[in-house]
Amino acid sequence: MAASSVLLDGIGLLVTGSSDYGDGSPLGEVEDAAIVVDQGRVAWVGPAAAAPPVDVREDASGRCVLPGFVDSHSHLVFAGDRAAEFDARMAGRAYQSGGIRTTVTATRAASDEVLAANVARLVTEMRRQGTTTVEIKSGYGLTVRDEVRSLVLARQHTDETTFLGAHVVPKEFADDVAGYVELLTGDMLDACVPHSRWVDVFCERGAFDADAARTVLTAGMARGLRPRVHANQLGPGPGVALACELGAASADHCTYLTDADVDALASSGTVATLLPGVEFSTRSPYPEARRLLEAGAVVAIATDCNPGSCFTSSMPFCIALAVREMRMTPAEAVWSATVGGAVALRRADVGRLVPGARADLMVLDAPSYVHLAYRPGVPLVATVWHEGKPSPW
Amino acid sequence: MAASSVLLDGIGLLVTGSSDYGDGSPLGEVEDAAIVVDQGRVAWVGPAAAAPPVDVREDASGRCVLPGFVDSHSHLVFAGDRAAEFDARMAGRAYQSGGIRTTVTATRAASDEVLAANVARLVTEMRRQGTTTVEIKSGYGLTVRDEVRSLVLARQHTDETTFLGAHVVPKEFADDVAGYVELLTGDMLDACVPHSRWVDVFCERGAFDADAARTVLTAGMARGLRPRVHANQLGPGPGVALACELGAASADHCTYLTDADVDALASSGTVATLLPGVEFSTRSPYPEARRLLEAGAVVAIATDCNPGSCFTSSMPFCIALAVREMRMTPAEAVWSATVGGAVALRRADVGRLVPGARADLMVLDAPSYVHLAYRPGVPLVATVWHEGKPSPW
Repeated sequence: MAASSVLLDGIGLLVTGSSDYGDGSPLGEVEDAAIVVDQGRVAWVGPAAAAPPVDVREDASGRCVLPGFVDSHSHLVFAGDRAAEFDARMAGRAYQSGGIRTTVTATRAASDEVLAANVARLVTEMRRQGTTTVEIKSGYGLTVRDEVRSLVLARQHTDETTFLGAHVVPKEFADDVAGYVELLTGDMLDACVPHSRWVDVFCERGAFDADAARTVLTAGMARGLRPRVHANQLGPGPGVALACELGAASADHCTYLTDADVDALASSGTVATLLPGVEFSTRSPYPEARRLLEAGAVVAIATDCNPGSCFTSSMPFCIALAVREMRMTPAEAVWSATVGGAVALRRADVGRLVPGARADLMVLDAPSYVHLAYRPGVPLVATVWHEGKPSPW
Repeated sequence: MAASSVLLDGIGLLVTGSSDYGDGSPLGEVEDAAIVVDQGRVAWVGPAAAAPPVDVREDASGRCVLPGFVDSHSHLVFAGDRAAEFDARMAGRAYQSGGIRTTVTATRAASDEVLAANVARLVTEMRRQGTTTVEIKSGYGLTVRDEVRSLVLARQHTDETTFLGAHVVPKEFADDVAGYVELLTGDMLDACVPHSRWVDVFCERGAFDADAARTVLTAGMARGLRPRVHANQLGPGPGVALACELGAASADHCTYLTDADVDALASSGTVATLLPGVEFSTRSPYPEARRLLEAGAVVAIATDCNPGSCFTSSMPFCIALAVREMRMTPAEAVWSATVGGAVALRRADVGRLVPGARADLMVLDAPSYVHLAYRPGVPLVATVWHEGKPSPW
């Protein structure tokens, strides 16, 4: 072992996220466990009694350790606040809101400094709650300049940046959707490709139809971006089928699914990413996680953190909702918030604590991951390690 | 002003909890506000521009300040953990549980040190989430010795201790309920009175019927304890009517109410204390807050923090549930979690930030209290002042 290796010992319950390490379950549970971290990577996991000698030893004091959360869907680059809109929605009061366009106006008007501070604050807030990998979308700029600066700001915090110029048709193109699609697949795509890993489209009535979505996604794919789709959130629609057809890494929302949609997800590599914080914050019906799981689909959970439909940054909260409202077991929900998120981002190096993986983990102030649902709302994340280093905050 | 006075300035939005201070609403909102704290009490509140000169100035940086939460219903003195029971319940799996009696067995077997550490940990956890006044019940001892030690341990953290020997009939009295009521109203009451402010009964099918509840409550009242009642949680029942008849400070749960129950609450001084974390954690229907509010009842919100039916300690989480699930407005929910809790404990010195009140407050990492519901699950409580002192943790 190199001089930099650290043994995290005294782990009451370790979640590896791999059936190859631990009790053979998908979550890979190991009691009385230890991890060796070397140069930011996991070097060894197993029963504490079998741990190799290392230079430095840290004690988890019998607590539960799990992989850092992988939040595969968020919108963190924005300005403004829509608390008044939320307040009115919850009370059933009429409220004149431009929805996403309200945030677009505020974001365009904001300085780089304000946007940068907002992203940094939210990423830190997520980190304190156990999130060590986050995908961040553009989509509140909707001009070449504003989409690029959103992605540049996001890239300062993550490699998982997503070009979502196709979030909504901006008001200046309200009468010329074809013109906006031309911009999206032309100058805007050109400018955004260097700063993006992914291309995403909000494929929904009121946003982009299947033809426009296919045009944008295939244009992005031709430039090396990988597709993911906002699909079937507000009603049945073509988004999930399109995502599966194009081999998208993930179809996100999946609130309204036909049997054909479920079959397509189950028989493809496209992950069904569920965002139950949205249904909580909009008082909508929750996606049918059990139907997806029983069909054999891969399910991820993410926050969708955004100022309109869901302003939570808390993966523990989403896990509690997944258990209460979508009838996932705590084990399934934790898997979906770690390994599932990693699959939705096509990442093998995060979301699991196995040799070679990034040493991204959290220590819970609890003996089991079940407590993330059993103790809803309680900030249980005691310490977060990112690339082998305990986070200071 | 004395040398110890502190000005908390730069408050973007202050909630006083009094219609006499602020905008005239029940929540008492003041924008661009300040508070003067002197010797642990609020000395002055108002617009920052009008603040008197003081020795020390602290800056809230435009954030929202509200009264510390008053959590008027909790069960923090216990040992053991029922995560496995929770896990099974959520999955709909059969699970052999003794319910409350499981925790009674573990609590009786635990050392004073273990119980004391558990209470301290949970009180600290609550404080970090903004709770500055907490009511703590006994009820997992159910012997003279174990009820007394529960109350003694609780009293180390709060004046609001509640004798709940009548939580459930312990198994050794399973065939002799009358004998247990005799103990409750005799030796156990004698021993517990010096350590209690309140007497409480779980008046429910499977626990204590109306006659037994009346016997226990009136015996406690005759010894100077003040009554509160666990009522109408699992089905319609006599608890609410009994609470109102006896002038109880609060009837807690109120999940199943007849029109007569609602009328009784609205026309009495008995507060309806709602515990939505229980319904979340047991997947049960939520109480009808709007029906109570529209009838004119005083509504409080509390956590019911306990290891069985609801192990949240988070008042912010309960506020988010109150808004999402019980259709309270954020303003109503915050009022119920502060002023409402204080009324349910018959306390005039907490739950509000008005001259003479205890300087118990929190600074939110947010511009408004609405964010407690708008940003569910996010730990937004930045700093908590208890009796005028910022809490270290």
